[in-house]
Amino acid sequence: MRLRNKPWAKELIDAHPELIQVQPEHVADQFAQKQPVRLEIGTGKGQFIFKMAQLHPEINFLALEMQHSALAVLLKAQVDAQLPNLQLVVANAENLQALFAGWHFSEIYLNFSDPWPKTRHEKRRLTYSSFLTQYQQLLVPDGVVQLKTDNRHFFEYSLISMNQFGMQFQQLSLDLHHDDTTWAAANVPTEYEDKFSAKGQPIYGVRAVFHQAKG
Amino acid sequence: MRLRNKPWAKELIDAHPELIQVQPEHVADQFAQKQPVRLEIGTGKGQFIFKMAQLHPEINFLALEMQHSALAVLLKAQVDAQLPNLQLVVANAENLQALFAGWHFSEIYLNFSDPWPKTRHEKRRLTYSSFLTQYQQLLVPDGVVQLKTDNRHFFEYSLISMNQFGMQFQQLSLDLHHDDTTWAAANVPTEYEDKFSAKGQPIYGVRAVFHQAKG
Repeated sequence: MRLRNKPWAKELIDAHPELIQVQPEHVADQFAQKQPVRLEIGTGKGQFIFKMAQLHPEINFLALEMQHSALAVLLKAQVDAQLPNLQLVVANAENLQALFAGWHFSEIYLNFSDPWPKTRHEKRRLTYSSFLTQYQQLLVPDGVVQLKTDNRHFFEYSLISMNQFGMQFQQLSLDLHHDDTTWAAANVPTEYEDKFSAKGQPIYGVRAVFHQAKG
Repeated sequence: MRLRNKPWAKELIDAHPELIQVQPEHVADQFAQKQPVRLEIGTGKGQFIFKMAQLHPEINFLALEMQHSALAVLLKAQVDAQLPNLQLVVANAENLQALFAGWHFSEIYLNFSDPWPKTRHEKRRLTYSSFLTQYQQLLVPDGVVQLKTDNRHFFEYSLISMNQFGMQFQQLSLDLHHDDTTWAAANVPTEYEDKFSAKGQPIYGVRAVFHQAKG
């Protein structure tokens, strides 16, 4: 969803280069601690990753979002909170390889990504094979891709795409908010997720890895 | 679902050995024509396979069900219709290898199989790995397993199990009765499927193969 332009966003972003990197060719490591890093692609206003960063100080979180106005909302919260394990990046997700060359993430989050429903836009979907190739290269060997969505057709597409790519499903839910699992119990909802779920719509989710777990 | 015992079932079954095989050690080929064969495991009262056999005279259909009383309902219809491409087998699905040694199916149908929800019954689920191993051996190289169910947890389990086994999803639906696909258009519902769908519950489905399609 495109947000209305926020006049204060640019000024806030410019004032905090220690918290947010804007259109970098390569994302610099500005975290306070060397510890595992998780990446969210398409952070939006950041409710999910902010809460995750609060809950897990032992993990670094990198929030990637291309809309300044959306990410500025998260930045505002972070300017107050100064979480040492949260960094923001304003950039397009098209060339993750260049953006994150040398990084190795322990987990990649795809939360309520744009479903790009038209067949001619298939290549833009964040679970299209070219993106999966990039995730594989950016993740540590046992690294997880976690996807949540309310969009049935995008979820169906993503399951087929990940399966055909050779990814292995670890957990899968067709109604995450009505599950009795550790994943459901620990689930941190995004802004959209709260809205959709309140309408009674199921939240779909999958956690998958690229390499077969050793038995 | 266990049906009430039908007093007429035994007599009807005994009278038609040309249409139905009872507890065979090995299923004999009694089809009129040599042509591709599809197997339904757990046929119940047989609405699905009877309709399929009517629609596709160029394909043989084998209906496997362990309950005499259920399969006798299909037999009754078949005694009247005498479809040359439909054969019935009353037997347990436990040892398919022995039952169908030498057979090669083009497709295997799992329709609304018992979900066996308790973890200690996992091995009884028809998508447990030991069953998938048997399907792989009984199918032609490009043979398809088609599964439909209304049971969310059984579907989640089946997707993970098939994925982890290395099966490739060809089609996947989280609401088959509201899809605009050729699969949905050609879908033949089972008795249960009609009931569940009438209540507004989604019908889940997947079509998967064991061997990666060549590009």
